[in-house]
Formats: sequence, C-alpha cells, structure tokens
Amino acid sequence: MDAELDALAPTPSLLVEIDTFDHNLRIMGATHPGRRLRTHVKAFKSTAMAARVAAAGHPTFCCATIREVEGMAAAGLGDDLLLANEVLDARRLGAVAATGARVTVAVDSAETVDAAAAGGVPAVLVDVNVGLPRCGCDPSDAGRLADRARAAGLEVRGVMGYEGHIVGLDDRGERIAGVAAAMERLLAAHADVGGGIVSAGGTGTWDINTWATEIQAGSFLLMDTDYARLDLPFRTALFVLGRVISVNPAQGYAVADVGLKSLGMDHGKPSIDGHSVWFCSDEHVTFAPRDGGRLPAIGELVRVRTAHVDPTVARHEVFHVVRGHEKVDEWPIDLRHW
Amino acid sequence: MDAELDALAPTPSLLVEIDTFDHNLRIMGATHPGRRLRTHVKAFKSTAMAARVAAAGHPTFCCATIREVEGMAAAGLGDDLLLANEVLDARRLGAVAATGARVTVAVDSAETVDAAAAGGVPAVLVDVNVGLPRCGCDPSDAGRLADRARAAGLEVRGVMGYEGHIVGLDDRGERIAGVAAAMERLLAAHADVGGGIVSAGGTGTWDINTWATEIQAGSFLLMDTDYARLDLPFRTALFVLGRVISVNPAQGYAVADVGLKSLGMDHGKPSIDGHSVWFCSDEHVTFAPRDGGRLPAIGELVRVRTAHVDPTVARHEVFHVVRGHEKVDEWPIDLRHW
Repeated sequence: MDAELDALAPTPSLLVEIDTFDHNLRIMGATHPGRRLRTHVKAFKSTAMAARVAAAGHPTFCCATIREVEGMAAAGLGDDLLLANEVLDARRLGAVAATGARVTVAVDSAETVDAAAAGGVPAVLVDVNVGLPRCGCDPSDAGRLADRARAAGLEVRGVMGYEGHIVGLDDRGERIAGVAAAMERLLAAHADVGGGIVSAGGTGTWDINTWATEIQAGSFLLMDTDYARLDLPFRTALFVLGRVISVNPAQGYAVADVGLKSLGMDHGKPSIDGHSVWFCSDEHVTFAPRDGGRLPAIGELVRVRTAHVDPTVARHEVFHVVRGHEKVDEWPIDLRHW
Repeated sequence: MDAELDALAPTPSLLVEIDTFDHNLRIMGATHPGRRLRTHVKAFKSTAMAARVAAAGHPTFCCATIREVEGMAAAGLGDDLLLANEVLDARRLGAVAATGARVTVAVDSAETVDAAAAGGVPAVLVDVNVGLPRCGCDPSDAGRLADRARAAGLEVRGVMGYEGHIVGLDDRGERIAGVAAAMERLLAAHADVGGGIVSAGGTGTWDINTWATEIQAGSFLLMDTDYARLDLPFRTALFVLGRVISVNPAQGYAVADVGLKSLGMDHGKPSIDGHSVWFCSDEHVTFAPRDGGRLPAIGELVRVRTAHVDPTVARHEVFHVVRGHEKVDEWPIDLRHW
C-alpha cells in the first residue's frame, strides 16, 4: 500500500499530508481571514502546527486546557489565547498572562468569575449554553455574570457559545436551522453582556454560522471519518501509519499494529480504504479486503483513518509530516496532558 | 464526594487505591503463585507498579510493545520478559537481550521467526490462533514454525494462545466451554512444538484456564467496569479523579473535567457511582444524579470509573497512589508509546 513510506516513520505513527493540510487551511482562510478564525488547538495539540496556522495570517487561538495555553504562550503564540473552558483555579493562567501573553478565559458561574479574578487572568468571555448540555450559563444569567466580572476588575470581551449539538448533524438544512436557534440564544446574551466578541462555531458549521464574529474550528485542518460524512470541502490530512504483522489467508483477514492505544474510539472504529475493519485491540486492528480485493502481505504498510481526530492525536508524541512519499518535517505534539 | 482528596492530585488524574490493588494481587497470587502468573504490563504501563508485582513473588512479565520490553529491562525487571506480539524488526529487542535481560518474542509466521533470528532475540514462543481473529498461526502450522526457529538457532520455549474472544463472555459456563475448546487447539500445537511453556489466559478466565502453565492477566490489578460485569473476585482499584466545573440546576446535570482525552472509550462510557453519565467530550463528562440524588456543587471532586483500563491508563503520565484520603506514592506511567 505504501511501500515507499517504509523508512519514513515507525509504526504506529501519525502522518500529516502537508499539501492537504495547507489546502484545508486555505479554504477556511478564504471565508474566515485573519482573526475571524480562532483555531482550536485541542484538535492537534502542537505548537509547530499552530505556528503554521499563525504564519498563514491567523494569530488567535482557542485552547481547551491550561497546559495548551501555557505551551502556546511559551512558543511565542500568545497573541490572543482563549481558554474556551471553565477553570476553578486560574493561577497558572494568571502566570501566563504575567509573561505578556494575552489570556482570556471562559466563565459561566460566579465561581469561575471569582477564580479568574483571583488567579490574575485579565479578561473573560461569558460562556453561554446554546443547547449543548455541557458548560455555559443560561442566556438570562449572562448579563449578571458580566457585571460581576467587571466589578472584579476583569475585562469582559464578549460571549462564546458552542453549538456542539449541531456541528455533526448529517443534514445541512438541519444544521442551518439549528445554528440559527443556537445563535439566537447567544445574541440575546450578548445584548446583555456587551464586548466585541461573539465566539462560536466549529468545523461542521464553519460556513453556516454567520452570526459569530469568530469561528472556533480545529478539526478541519486534519479531518476524520466522522466529519468526512458531511458535505464539507475539507479533506483527510491525517492517517495512522501501521504495518501488517500477521495474515490469516484461510480466514481472509490481516492484522496491523494500530490499536486502541493509538486511536480515539469514541466515534467508532477506524477505516482502511478498500477494507472492512473488524475490530481493534490494544495494539491491533483486524481487517479484511472488500469486494474481492487483495489480502495485504506481512510487512506491508497501511494507512488507517481515524473516526475522531482530537483524541487520536492526543495519544501520540509527534506528527510525521509528509509530501507524497517524502517526509518533510516532524512536529512534536507538545500540548498534551493537563 | 471526595473533599478530603482535594489537595492530592490535579484533575483529571488517575488514582490507584493501593489496598484494593494489593487485595487483587493477593487473590491472583493465591491461585497462581510465582511464575504461574505472567503479569501483562500493557494493562498499566508502569515499571513502579510492575516492581510491586515482582516484589510479591511474580518476576515474569508479558509485554505488548517493544518499548514496554525496553523499559522493563532498564528498570531491572528483565528476569523473564515475553513480548506477546508479532514484530518484523526485532533489533531493539535483540539489543535488550544483549544487556542480559531474558527476552522471548511471539512468532506466528516464517517472517516473524526470521525477524527474531535476524534481530538477535534468543528465544520464541509459537503464537497459536485459538479462536480470536487476530495474530497466531493455525495449530497445524505450529510444528513447522518451531522447526524453522530451531534451525535458525532460536530456543523454542513453547506456545502461547490468547482466548480473547472468551475472556469477556458474561456467562461463566460459556467461558468454561470456550476455554476448553481454545486450549484444545493450543495443546494440539504444543504437542508439535515442545518446550515447557503453555502461556494463555486473561483476567476473565484466570481461574478457568487450568491448561496453561502460566496466566497472562493484567487487568485484574486495577479492574474496569467491563470486567466488573463478570463474577470475578477482583475490585476496582483505578479511578479518574475529576472536578465539577459547571452545574446546570435547571436541567439537573453537572459537568466534570474528565473527557475523551483522559479515558479509553472503546468499551463505552465511563461510570460515576449514583449518577447517569450522559456523554463525554474532549475534556468533559456530563452526568446527572440518579434516583433523586443530590446534584454535586461546582468544585466538588468526583471519581470516574473507566470502562476499559488499558487504553485509559495509556492517556496519563502518572498514577497517584492513595490509601483512603491520603496520597502515599506516585508511580510514573513510563512504558507508553512505542
């Protein structure tokens, strides 16, 4: 399958096709130039990859963990970092802000407002529940939280609200209607909160969410089979490279060394082009050719597509960046853990 | 829920209850003393944890990756290390053997036999397919592979065959019948192969597999909700500690900071005692009290039970070892990656 890649990377390991990655970034940037894209770092957890996004003109980023914020700032990517998540101990964030990085944190309760102030974080966005049962205050509480934040000396930059219950809907019409309803809640909150930012959106609603002033997308850069179901112009740039270590000709299946330890499995099994994936074990994937295809031989390389990019990336130490069958770079996945 | 643990560990992080761990090890050791237990390192990936197992009288270990073998040998735990997996480049294993550790590797094909010989690994077990569609040769090929190995100068120590299709069956009677059928295949191969070792078994068949000379169990030490379904005497010693970061009283749910990045999800959602888990996102679990229970408050700690221990552990850097509400040790998870 990929004999030419043989010497490029050990198995299992992550491959990023750089030309596809750049294609995805160009498509997104054409609709959301500059700061209209606030790229979500959680999808790739790599300052080297973030630097390539920043070099393309998008210097603002979203993070999901404190360590992501710390690592981005330390790598000189602290132009405008939003921790789009709630924290009850913000002291590490305050320490990052003290180094000169611009740090903003999401708040959805009195406790998180107070934690931001106590921790020395200078600015907040009020996180609003727009329908996803996760973090975010009720829209009717947003103004009160903004008042509390301002009273504590915090800059209130605006609102955020992630329509995560909408981004994966198969039908584009349903996504359009869903985003409209979600953003109605967010704009109602924004009217009470003020500030210049309305931060929302994801890869699945990237061109639908026209209410937000900035889009918090990340998966579009690498893509996965779950997002590939949708009518999106982004292409798969990420593969897990594996090697066939065992073949059973009698039963017609092969086994490669890509398993649960190198994949995120919450969105289901991975895929291998031209094959049916039977199941994964800790260090194995068992698969069989479809439609009378050829059973691979022991030692052959296979490219495995993951069902969910974010938790897959977080299992690896490095991206092997390739162009065709040539390895052109290696990007550490340096923003893992907490 | 766990207010006293507040200062013990950041969230999310792994807790190991040391008394429960020791209980599980004692139960297993009473049936499988000494070298009858070949503990599977893949379930916990920590040389510190392995050292506690060795100190209890079980010096032999199974590994699933080359890095696990390297790390165990470097930590002085190289008394008898079996890589229970197929490799096509065994040079790193040969280098470990050259340091004086005893290294054995599984083989199920001419290619893997030749790789072992070329890589400088001194000994092999012939890996036999006993019904799980994964690695392992047909029993009728085992003798031929053993001959090839001996002709290449390798010591053939015996056979292995993992009844992974049986270990998770709910019904004990089905497990008993399934193991008997699987071991019939393995013993047929052993008759052709020779050697003193018949290596098989797992946590779900630990007391059922009386044919094997050694049991390759690992999950019994920490346990997970998948194995807890079965009629086993082992108790849950592993929890992911999380903190409630957001509460929605109107809808009656809470959100804690334990998500897809800190869990293995292939066996399904995690569990929280007394609560229903709705879903997990990258860094969140949304859950609600059952049976009119109390909604936890922002800032409270929660203990999350994982559905599958092995891929959960591999997402973390360290075990926080606790006795009651006291932290007694910290064990690095130092055998991750490949």
